[in-house]
Amino acid sequence: MSLPTTICSPSILTEYQQIRAVSTHICQPLAIEDYQIQSMPDVSPPKWHLAHTTWFFETFILTPYLPGYSVFHPQFGYLFNSYYEAVGARHPRHQRGLLSRPTVAEVYQYRDYVDRAMTTLTITPNLTALITLGLHHEQQHQELLLTDIKHILALNPLQPPYRKDLTEFTTLEPTAPINWLTYPGGLYEIGHQGTEFAFDNESPRHRTYLQDYSLADRPVTNGEYLEFIQSGGYQTSQHWLSAGWSTVQTQGWQAPLYWQQIEGNWWVMTMGGLRRVNLAEPVCHVSFYEADAYASWRGDRLPTEAEWEVATTSTPVAGNLLDFQQLHPAPRQDSQPQFYGDVWEWTQSAYLPYPGFQIAPGAIGEYNGKFMCNQMVLRGGSSMTPANHIRPTYRNFFPPDTRWQFSGIRLAQ
Amino acid sequence: MSLPTTICSPSILTEYQQIRAVSTHICQPLAIEDYQIQSMPDVSPPKWHLAHTTWFFETFILTPYLPGYSVFHPQFGYLFNSYYEAVGARHPRHQRGLLSRPTVAEVYQYRDYVDRAMTTLTITPNLTALITLGLHHEQQHQELLLTDIKHILALNPLQPPYRKDLTEFTTLEPTAPINWLTYPGGLYEIGHQGTEFAFDNESPRHRTYLQDYSLADRPVTNGEYLEFIQSGGYQTSQHWLSAGWSTVQTQGWQAPLYWQQIEGNWWVMTMGGLRRVNLAEPVCHVSFYEADAYASWRGDRLPTEAEWEVATTSTPVAGNLLDFQQLHPAPRQDSQPQFYGDVWEWTQSAYLPYPGFQIAPGAIGEYNGKFMCNQMVLRGGSSMTPANHIRPTYRNFFPPDTRWQFSGIRLAQ
Amino acid sequence: MSLPTTICSPSILTEYQQIRAVSTHICQPLAIEDYQIQSMPDVSPPKWHLAHTTWFFETFILTPYLPGYSVFHPQFGYLFNSYYEAVGARHPRHQRGLLSRPTVAEVYQYRDYVDRAMTTLTITPNLTALITLGLHHEQQHQELLLTDIKHILALNPLQPPYRKDLTEFTTLEPTAPINWLTYPGGLYEIGHQGTEFAFDNESPRHRTYLQDYSLADRPVTNGEYLEFIQSGGYQTSQHWLSAGWSTVQTQGWQAPLYWQQIEGNWWVMTMGGLRRVNLAEPVCHVSFYEADAYASWRGDRLPTEAEWEVATTSTPVAGNLLDFQQLHPAPRQDSQPQFYGDVWEWTQSAYLPYPGFQIAPGAIGEYNGKFMCNQMVLRGGSSMTPANHIRPTYRNFFPPDTRWQFSGIRLAQ
Amino acid sequence: MSLPTTICSPSILTEYQQIRAVSTHICQPLAIEDYQIQSMPDVSPPKWHLAHTTWFFETFILTPYLPGYSVFHPQFGYLFNSYYEAVGARHPRHQRGLLSRPTVAEVYQYRDYVDRAMTTLTITPNLTALITLGLHHEQQHQELLLTDIKHILALNPLQPPYRKDLTEFTTLEPTAPINWLTYPGGLYEIGHQGTEFAFDNESPRHRTYLQDYSLADRPVTNGEYLEFIQSGGYQTSQHWLSAGWSTVQTQGWQAPLYWQQIEGNWWVMTMGGLRRVNLAEPVCHVSFYEADAYASWRGDRLPTEAEWEVATTSTPVAGNLLDFQQLHPAPRQDSQPQFYGDVWEWTQSAYLPYPGFQIAPGAIGEYNGKFMCNQMVLRGGSSMTPANHIRPTYRNFFPPDTRWQFSGIRLAQ
Repeated sequence: MSLPTTICSPSILTEYQQIRAVSTHICQPLAIEDYQIQSMPDVSPPKWHLAHTTWFFETFILTPYLPGYSVFHPQFGYLFNSYYEAVGARHPRHQRGLLSRPTVAEVYQYRDYVDRAMTTLTITPNLTALITLGLHHEQQHQELLLTDIKHILALNPLQPPYRKDLTEFTTLEPTAPINWLTYPGGLYEIGHQGTEFAFDNESPRHRTYLQDYSLADRPVTNGEYLEFIQSGGYQTSQHWLSAGWSTVQTQGWQAPLYWQQIEGNWWVMTMGGLRRVNLAEPVCHVSFYEADAYASWRGDRLPTEAEWEVATTSTPVAGNLLDFQQLHPAPRQDSQPQFYGDVWEWTQSAYLPYPGFQIAPGAIGEYNGKFMCNQMVLRGGSSMTPANHIRPTYRNFFPPDTRWQFSGIRLAQ
Repeated sequence: MSLPTTICSPSILTEYQQIRAVSTHICQPLAIEDYQIQSMPDVSPPKWHLAHTTWFFETFILTPYLPGYSVFHPQFGYLFNSYYEAVGARHPRHQRGLLSRPTVAEVYQYRDYVDRAMTTLTITPNLTALITLGLHHEQQHQELLLTDIKHILALNPLQPPYRKDLTEFTTLEPTAPINWLTYPGGLYEIGHQGTEFAFDNESPRHRTYLQDYSLADRPVTNGEYLEFIQSGGYQTSQHWLSAGWSTVQTQGWQAPLYWQQIEGNWWVMTMGGLRRVNLAEPVCHVSFYEADAYASWRGDRLPTEAEWEVATTSTPVAGNLLDFQQLHPAPRQDSQPQFYGDVWEWTQSAYLPYPGFQIAPGAIGEYNGKFMCNQMVLRGGSSMTPANHIRPTYRNFFPPDTRWQFSGIRLAQ
Repeated sequence: MSLPTTICSPSILTEYQQIRAVSTHICQPLAIEDYQIQSMPDVSPPKWHLAHTTWFFETFILTPYLPGYSVFHPQFGYLFNSYYEAVGARHPRHQRGLLSRPTVAEVYQYRDYVDRAMTTLTITPNLTALITLGLHHEQQHQELLLTDIKHILALNPLQPPYRKDLTEFTTLEPTAPINWLTYPGGLYEIGHQGTEFAFDNESPRHRTYLQDYSLADRPVTNGEYLEFIQSGGYQTSQHWLSAGWSTVQTQGWQAPLYWQQIEGNWWVMTMGGLRRVNLAEPVCHVSFYEADAYASWRGDRLPTEAEWEVATTSTPVAGNLLDFQQLHPAPRQDSQPQFYGDVWEWTQSAYLPYPGFQIAPGAIGEYNGKFMCNQMVLRGGSSMTPANHIRPTYRNFFPPDTRWQFSGIRLAQ
Repeated sequence: MSLPTTICSPSILTEYQQIRAVSTHICQPLAIEDYQIQSMPDVSPPKWHLAHTTWFFETFILTPYLPGYSVFHPQFGYLFNSYYEAVGARHPRHQRGLLSRPTVAEVYQYRDYVDRAMTTLTITPNLTALITLGLHHEQQHQELLLTDIKHILALNPLQPPYRKDLTEFTTLEPTAPINWLTYPGGLYEIGHQGTEFAFDNESPRHRTYLQDYSLADRPVTNGEYLEFIQSGGYQTSQHWLSAGWSTVQTQGWQAPLYWQQIEGNWWVMTMGGLRRVNLAEPVCHVSFYEADAYASWRGDRLPTEAEWEVATTSTPVAGNLLDFQQLHPAPRQDSQPQFYGDVWEWTQSAYLPYPGFQIAPGAIGEYNGKFMCNQMVLRGGSSMTPANHIRPTYRNFFPPDTRWQFSGIRLAQ
């Protein structure tokens, strides 16, 4: 990844403390019991997220760079390694929910132990770069924490809310029709440049050729998506990719994840509990298959990631980057184009290396490159994405049948 | 089931409080986190056991017989019904470990709420019979609680002990050879008689014809079973039932459950943590397949359940009925025949209805009869069985590949 | 197994030729293509049956006892061993349908090769016993051939008949009500005795005690079973064993195997093609679970195997032992008790060793004993069973969810 | 797809007869039994290929355009539809191997019936276009026939050759080192243009920007790939994509498909039977995962499909387009760059729609577009590809774990 060249060391530790505190803050509303649950193989227990992000600092920073550092527990390396083959064996991913120990209290002790050790480091530019990577890694897990907590609570027949104090959006009036923003074809450059932090998969910056294209100025809303449902979208094979249609039938999909029909009305599980579907909000928790089928049904298509990036860097855009205050994709507030912080937007681009992409050596090199297969790129960040974590070149990626992420739809033509 | 005819009502509520308190006592060493885990589909989270036994009293006693009783929570019937089809829909068994809510604290509130309501009942003979059934049901779950807790902790790579204060048996000297107790053939009666409580599957008492036979005077020990392992027992198909051999290969069995070889020595996970295998103790955590293969390798066989019952009612026998004090199958203390309270003993009898068996009407009728297929009978009780819960006619039953129960081997000829 | 003591050698070879010819005769109506199909894992391709029964004679008789005998093909031992672990590795059972080679013509050449070699044997009493065993084994596979052929053809959407010349039974008038045959309780002997051939699992003959009991004088008919269907039998959990109810729901069972409802009428696939369900015929292709649930719904039960055997040896009985002429369970012809040759009758007895049962040494010992787990006994033979293959002590056995066998229901009280 | 505008009708029927005859010719060496086998879900029985390609002409040409045409069999539409949802229900793909009927003879009758009807058509330009599509479809299935036949025979423990008259390549001398062909970066056009037939997925022709790049002048050989194996390539996670490494471990891959090690030497199943691995031949039957891992191990990469297409249209290239004469990837004959007719070459491009791609209306529209997800593009054709079926713009596609296709590796830098 591209590393910042001039950072003064005090600020990185301040940043460290601030970002680490957010993870703890996210877990505050949880019962001890909620920390244990792996509601499906893709979900990790909140306790695991808290320990794994800590293990990252312990393994890649403290152990190699803090003289005399002794690991908190000799088996935590086995338990909390996620996928770094080069670091050694690890506990099977789908069995993370079977571990009652270490307890939640012990995991918080682990965090404190590592956080204290971090304050004793002599910060070098190289360490600053590694800590910065660790903090961006922690921020990724902050969004995953929220995403997984939602799944854990929604699966429970008691459907407990994550927080009881979240207000509902009351804007229910019809959304203004989509405006189409048009962009001329030509040679463009995309990818990361400059000295700010970016992940390795955003580089190298490179030229790409685009045809003329248009993008919708906002994501598709629940109301618009409901028309697709009501027109029989989930019962009509012709709009769907073959693999998508097969998934619809195998999984019995009838609507986005978390929607349920009760006595003729559509309800949806939110971070604030079960609520009526708000037609003005961006549709969320749809898979790439559903996004693609919806666009096909409309006679439109999804954007490529290059189209998306060129648009957001050439147009003044707005977003809802409010640092988890709403914990829900908000209805549009004004008439400005809206590209960030509502829902991750599926693109029609497969997640592949940019021309000239090089995998970094060592375990850190496993960070992004080895997942470049069978996944689709998403852009833009969601209402669960930390505001200072997102940028125009950011490439998120998930398999096309993924629904538990905060993922929605932007149309292109 | 057979119901006691004369019981004075005060004593049944005293008994209720005593037996209910044992369940709570069993869970005392647990961390909140341990209560959530379903380490395999057969295991239920401890929290579930505590709530399910409570639901039994609420559903079959309080709701029908306590005027004005209001259930603790309207959805607990869905969450904590185990298998009573007649009572309604229920949460899928294999997803019990995905429920963080109700919390452990709420489950204890549920127990208190029901326990308090029970004290206000006007006790009739019919209610006494139902409460007695509920208490025997609770005792069954007490053994299951211990069995499941052992599995939950043993699966964890940290291998935490259930209790740290359990002493190890130090008797390691060679066990005395098996003595064969011989019994003449002839017509016998087996099955429950009298006015004490027994489950429905122990009746009716009936005649059966036995050939001459002999039983070993004690269960097979770890040392004896180790000879089977070392002679290549797990690598030689000829001793095994076809289904057993297939299971050995599919599951990769090399030794009883919880055994592990570390640097050439055999260790075993116990309620007191990881310990060296004690050669003088009864072998435990073997499946019917292993029990049968061991007997076949020895040139012996397993007893039938009728042989077992006739022997224990015609011979003075000893056991280790110590109400969970050791939480481990103990080495033999003296030279008396030993039939109870060490390990459940696999018989070669399939679990089938006795001649003239009738299923009780209503949901209670689902208690035992509907499992009479593809299971084998076990007799004698284990070191986890409450002492006042076991009797000569007691029929326990599990599928032949079951290993997480405290099950061992008695030989017959 | 029990072996005949005086058999003159010419007759055994005559018998050999007669019985071997029946296998070929059964396959005569098949297209080459039909010989390859494994329509489910339990089914073997007809080609495999023809080769496997031949391999039995080659392996257990010719190779050890015919000096200078050279096997037909060095790899056929691998391909056509069914389950004899002691004989060596074998082709995976569920992949038998993936073998286009050897061709059908080559398999018939194999049969000829072995049949010719058999004529050159010097017959000893020991060989006579082995050949007799091989012939009974071949007869078992003759029934399996017909059973599997029916499944192969019924699965095909074109539903081709096995034979077009099979006449339909026209007796459709209401069946006479069941007569109950009563038998007094007491000590009886069951199991094989005498010098005729019997399989090892029919011995030793031994005493058993029976209570008073009654048996229906004929199997349950389609008409009677239809009442169970129409009363909601497949939708009501209370009649079913727990494992049976789970199977009903997982498999979506609504009626016996091969039944289908077309425009409100019940049709059934037969060896003669698709036909209307004949209400007077014995119901066939039901599992143990269905037989047990039907009996429970009626307030009756299934017989034990001892009850069945005592009844058939103490009562004059009739059957339809016609050597494949009808290839279908026939409606009852007269008012005599009817116990043989219609349908295999599920008993409530698990398939277990008789007291004193000994497994024969060597590979032959794998014949029956190693399957004594998780199976139920069936008695009486079906319309596909060779007439000279069945006897009162014969124990057939299948898992309780098996339906593709010609299995039906006799009631007991 | 792009349709030819001027074709005189006589020639299309001549072409029809020629191409249809090739399918029959390919099946000539088969035994009747070989036609039935579905050796894995991806494979179709040869009989099915012969019927399905015929169904294509019947359904899309004869039924709509030949007045009075009557289908050969009313259920063949159900049996031989591959994946056209718009045409109606169809037989499950993974059960194609369970159909013994129609027989092979009946399928050839079906072909004759349709072929005769085709000669009576009045040919219009629209029909010419449809027939041309049907013939290219048939040619695709000709390669699949050969691919599937190889799999069917190789899976059989007898390992029969497809043809016994195929000569082995004797060129075993060390292959000349790779020459790198270099191409300058810039704006290029790729995709189909002109009036010749091409599939819909090759259009529209469009601009793309390429960086400077180099391609190897020939595919990687067995000898070169063997170095990867011997260096521990299959045991080292670092070269592999995460999904690839997981597949290697789950499937136990140790070498390309069809390779087996016998007494220390590598052998490979070919269309001519089992042969020693020829080090000079292109490596074949590797997955995308293996191709990518090999390139990564070398420090190189795979080409994009645009790089491949630009190279082959700007460089004089050679190939081995010999119409099935060798049925095996041949060692290189001369020093010319070699791009066609050896092995399909995995690219690093995901199979996605070209900018402006439109799905054709109706069932024909299901031809290619609906598979544009989770697949990788292959280019160049193999030694099983009909010579007049391949072209520079041709896009083949398979999931990244596919190995039974004739797929190999070209390196890029």
